[in-house]
Amino acid sequence: MQISRVVRDLVTTKRVFWLASKSLRVVEDPAGNLDVVVDPIGTKPGDYVITIGYSAARAAAGNPNITTDLTIGGIIDDWSEERWRD
Amino acid sequence: MQISRVVRDLVTTKRVFWLASKSLRVVEDPAGNLDVVVDPIGTKPGDYVITIGYSAARAAAGNPNITTDLTIGGIIDDWSEERWRD
Amino acid sequence: MQISRVVRDLVTTKRVFWLASKSLRVVEDPAGNLDVVVDPIGTKPGDYVITIGYSAARAAAGNPNITTDLTIGGIIDDWSEERWRD
Amino acid sequence: MQISRVVRDLVTTKRVFWLASKSLRVVEDPAGNLDVVVDPIGTKPGDYVITIGYSAARAAAGNPNITTDLTIGGIIDDWSEERWRD
Amino acid sequence: MQISRVVRDLVTTKRVFWLASKSLRVVEDPAGNLDVVVDPIGTKPGDYVITIGYSAARAAAGNPNITTDLTIGGIIDDWSEERWRD
Repeated sequence: MQISRVVRDLVTTKRVFWLASKSLRVVEDPAGNLDVVVDPIGTKPGDYVITIGYSAARAAAGNPNITTDLTIGGIIDDWSEERWRD
Repeated sequence: MQISRVVRDLVTTKRVFWLASKSLRVVEDPAGNLDVVVDPIGTKPGDYVITIGYSAARAAAGNPNITTDLTIGGIIDDWSEERWRD
Repeated sequence: MQISRVVRDLVTTKRVFWLASKSLRVVEDPAGNLDVVVDPIGTKPGDYVITIGYSAARAAAGNPNITTDLTIGGIIDDWSEERWRD
Repeated sequence: MQISRVVRDLVTTKRVFWLASKSLRVVEDPAGNLDVVVDPIGTKPGDYVITIGYSAARAAAGNPNITTDLTIGGIIDDWSEERWRD
Repeated sequence: MQISRVVRDLVTTKRVFWLASKSLRVVEDPAGNLDVVVDPIGTKPGDYVITIGYSAARAAAGNPNITTDLTIGGIIDDWSEERWRD
């Protein structure tokens, strides 16, 4: 899994069926790349999270039919900017 | 999922069976790399979209038999060039 | 899917069972990286093709038992060196 | 599989269900990137390990329902800093 | 699939169950990155091989229960250092 930081919500109009009702967030990885994730646990901007990718992302979203390739798996308690950028 | 921008349609002559009837688009990611995606929702050049990769791409295309590894999952309402390139 | 250019055939002696009878090609991606792909449609050196990766590559090869992670999905009609290197 | 070095444990508060009871570690790859892994065998900081990614990570964690995309697969006996950084 | 060169065997003490009896090799890709692979066909250091990744790696290892994400798929007959580094 990757360590990322939640940046903001993402609003989309047209979506494929199985993403329609999901909470989407924009997260930033340590290299500054932006990804879009499904958030099944409720995070807020600034939270450090672990993201689960590939086929495991669907089950992590709570339903294997959810067509995501990246899902938030947990909120990290004790992470810091310094450690993150190491 | 990744954030990309639709560049153009892609025309192919010979295709494997399960891609034969699909709309293919060329999209550009923030780093300027080009990818080919299945578009199940109908996008136009310039749209900012989220792309779904790996095994989830097949279900997102509307049929798990569709042999794609990248599919458009939604159109982003409020994205901007500045934010995209950040 | 990725856009690549067919470079040459690949000859191997020992192979795992499910690749034994497949046509293998070396393809080059826009960054100049070489990959080995299964070619189910019949391409020739110089053709611009789309390649399908991950689990979809097996079905694209015509049989999900074929142990490939990258398969040619189609030949692009109207691609050019300039556009490819963009 | 990748060769990585165990850095530390990872503590998370909220987690998705199938990660709730797992031991998570932060590992560092040869390029210095940090990843979060499930540790089913019991490693300690400084151990050189092999990590198993993608869908195989779930089975390697001991239960295919465990929503991980990276799992420790073994401890390497005879690795060294010099060799690792090659 | 990727083209890599076999570097050496890998010895591990503790391993997850489904890797316990497999031959593991360290391979080097053209960029010099090291990977660990399951070798189902019997290779020796210096051999140029194709490696199969992701979910196909399990079937290529001879048993879908084998928890590998990278497996040697064949030995290349006519590869050369020059061509490899191109």
